[in-house]
Amino acid sequence: MKIAFLGPQASFTQLAATQLFADDELLPKANILDCFTAVENGEADKAVVPLENSIEGTVSMTLDYLYKIPEIKIEAEAVMPIAHHLMIHPANEIHEIEKIYSHPQALAQSFHFLNTNFRDVQKQDFSSTAAAAKYISENPDLKRAAVANQFAAHLYGLKIINRNIQDFEQNHTRFIVISKQNTPYMNKNLSVLGEKSGLLITLPEDHPGGLHQVLSVFAWRKMNLSKIESRTLKTGLGNYFFFITVVGKWDAVLYENALKELIALNTEVDFLGSYREYLLKS
Amino acid sequence: MKIAFLGPQASFTQLAATQLFADDELLPKANILDCFTAVENGEADKAVVPLENSIEGTVSMTLDYLYKIPEIKIEAEAVMPIAHHLMIHPANEIHEIEKIYSHPQALAQSFHFLNTNFRDVQKQDFSSTAAAAKYISENPDLKRAAVANQFAAHLYGLKIINRNIQDFEQNHTRFIVISKQNTPYMNKNLSVLGEKSGLLITLPEDHPGGLHQVLSVFAWRKMNLSKIESRTLKTGLGNYFFFITVVGKWDAVLYENALKELIALNTEVDFLGSYREYLLKS
Repeated sequence: MKIAFLGPQASFTQLAATQLFADDELLPKANILDCFTAVENGEADKAVVPLENSIEGTVSMTLDYLYKIPEIKIEAEAVMPIAHHLMIHPANEIHEIEKIYSHPQALAQSFHFLNTNFRDVQKQDFSSTAAAAKYISENPDLKRAAVANQFAAHLYGLKIINRNIQDFEQNHTRFIVISKQNTPYMNKNLSVLGEKSGLLITLPEDHPGGLHQVLSVFAWRKMNLSKIESRTLKTGLGNYFFFITVVGKWDAVLYENALKELIALNTEVDFLGSYREYLLKS
Repeated sequence: MKIAFLGPQASFTQLAATQLFADDELLPKANILDCFTAVENGEADKAVVPLENSIEGTVSMTLDYLYKIPEIKIEAEAVMPIAHHLMIHPANEIHEIEKIYSHPQALAQSFHFLNTNFRDVQKQDFSSTAAAAKYISENPDLKRAAVANQFAAHLYGLKIINRNIQDFEQNHTRFIVISKQNTPYMNKNLSVLGEKSGLLITLPEDHPGGLHQVLSVFAWRKMNLSKIESRTLKTGLGNYFFFITVVGKWDAVLYENALKELIALNTEVDFLGSYREYLLKS
C-alpha cells in the first residue's frame, strides 16, 4: 500500500507512519492538504496526519479537511509521547557548539533545558526539526547542534548528546490514519489504548443551548466524550461545526440510535468511523 | 507600553499587533511560550498571540499556557481575514521566477492559485512567510518569489504581483491580547464585532455526561457558546480541561450565578475575562 504522511523525511509524523505501516511505501507530503488530496485522488491508499498538539503544521487544518472532504474517514488514532533530543555531527564536540537549530515549537518545548545548559548559545528557527537535523549533518564545519527526534538522528548519522530535553514528561502528539475505505485499521504489534468513534456535527443554526441539546444525545446514553472542538465554517463568522470523539467499544444499536436522534435534531452528522487508539514509541 | 507578539518581524501576529497597539513598543518573540513568559515576568505589559487558525505556531499552546499560568487573562479578541499575496524583488520580472518560497501552510492555502498559474515552478518551505519575504528582498539575483502578507511586502520593499491568492475568501485568523491586569482592552479606531467571555473549566473526573452537566449551566440561562475546545491535561492521557467562550454582553448577575453553579459542580473554573471582539484589516 501507499501511505502519504506529513513530511519532510524524519518528521514526527514519519516516525508515527513507520510504526503504523512498517511494510508499506511511505510518501512524504509538504502539508496536511497534500496528504488529504493524495487520499482523495487515489495517489495514496491512506495517510497519517497530526490531530492534536503537533509542532508540524496547524492541526486545525486536519479538522477542516475532514469536514470539507466527507468521503475521507478515520481508521485509527495513535498517540506518541513527545521526545526531543539534542544532537550534533559526530565530528564535533558539544563544547564547541555555537548555535542550536530547530523548529521554534521544539525550541520552546525544550526551553528550560536549553536555558539552563546553553543559555548563551544562539537559537535559530528552522522550518522543521528534521530540516535542522539534515542541515547539521551536511555542515560539520559550522559547529551547530539540532533539537530533533531520534529517527532524525539515526537517518542523518548524528550523535545524541542529551536525551529527553523536553520540559514536560507527559506531553503527547496525536495522529490519525485516514482513508476512503471506512474500515478500522488493526495492528497486533502495537499496544491498544482503547476504542473510540469520531463525528463531525454541524448545528442547524447558531442558537443558545444548541450544543447542549446535541450533547444530551450522548449524556443520557452514558457515552463519554474524549474530545470536543468547535471549528468556524468557512462560510463566515459565527457558524460552527464540532468534532467530537466518543470513548468506548462500538455498540451498533446504541450508536445507531444516537445518530438517528442527532439527525432528528436537524444537525448534519458525518460519522468518521469507530476505531482503535494505539500507543506509539517516541 | 511594551507589547510582546509572536514574531518574526512582518508576521501575521505583528500585522495584528500594529493595528491593536499603534502607539506602543512592540517586542517580537520567537514562540508563544516566550510571549506568555514576557507578560508573566513583567518584561511586557501585554502580548498578542494567535488563538485560532494561525499558520504561525501551534495554537493549542496558547490554550495550554492560559491554563498553566492562571494570572494571565484575556483583554480582547481580534479577527483578521487571511490574505496571501505573491511578491517579488522589484528588480525582477514575474516570468523569470524559478522558485516560490513561503511557510508550508501558506503554500497549502494558496494551492489552487499556485497550481493553476505556477504549476512548474518549484515551491520551497520556509519557517515563516516573513522569513521568505526577507530572503527575497536580500537575494534579488536568485529570481525567487514569496507568498506573504502585505506588511511584509511593505517592510522589505517587495512588489506584489498577485493579490489575495488564498483559496478561500472567508478564512480568518483569531488573536487574543493577554495581560495580568484583567481589564478589558478598548480601541475606538477598530470595528467591534461583539462581546464575549472566556473560561477554562476542568472537570472533577472523567465521567460520561460531565461536560453535558457543565453546559447545562449555560444552556438554561440562554448563554450561547461561540467556541469550545477540549485539551489534554499534562498529567497524562484521559484528563481534560475545556476552553469555552460565551457570546454576549457581560451581565454581572447572570454570569456570577453561572460561575457559582459551576463551582458547585466541583469543577475548577478560571475566568479569563469578558472582552470585545475586534475586526482587523488583512
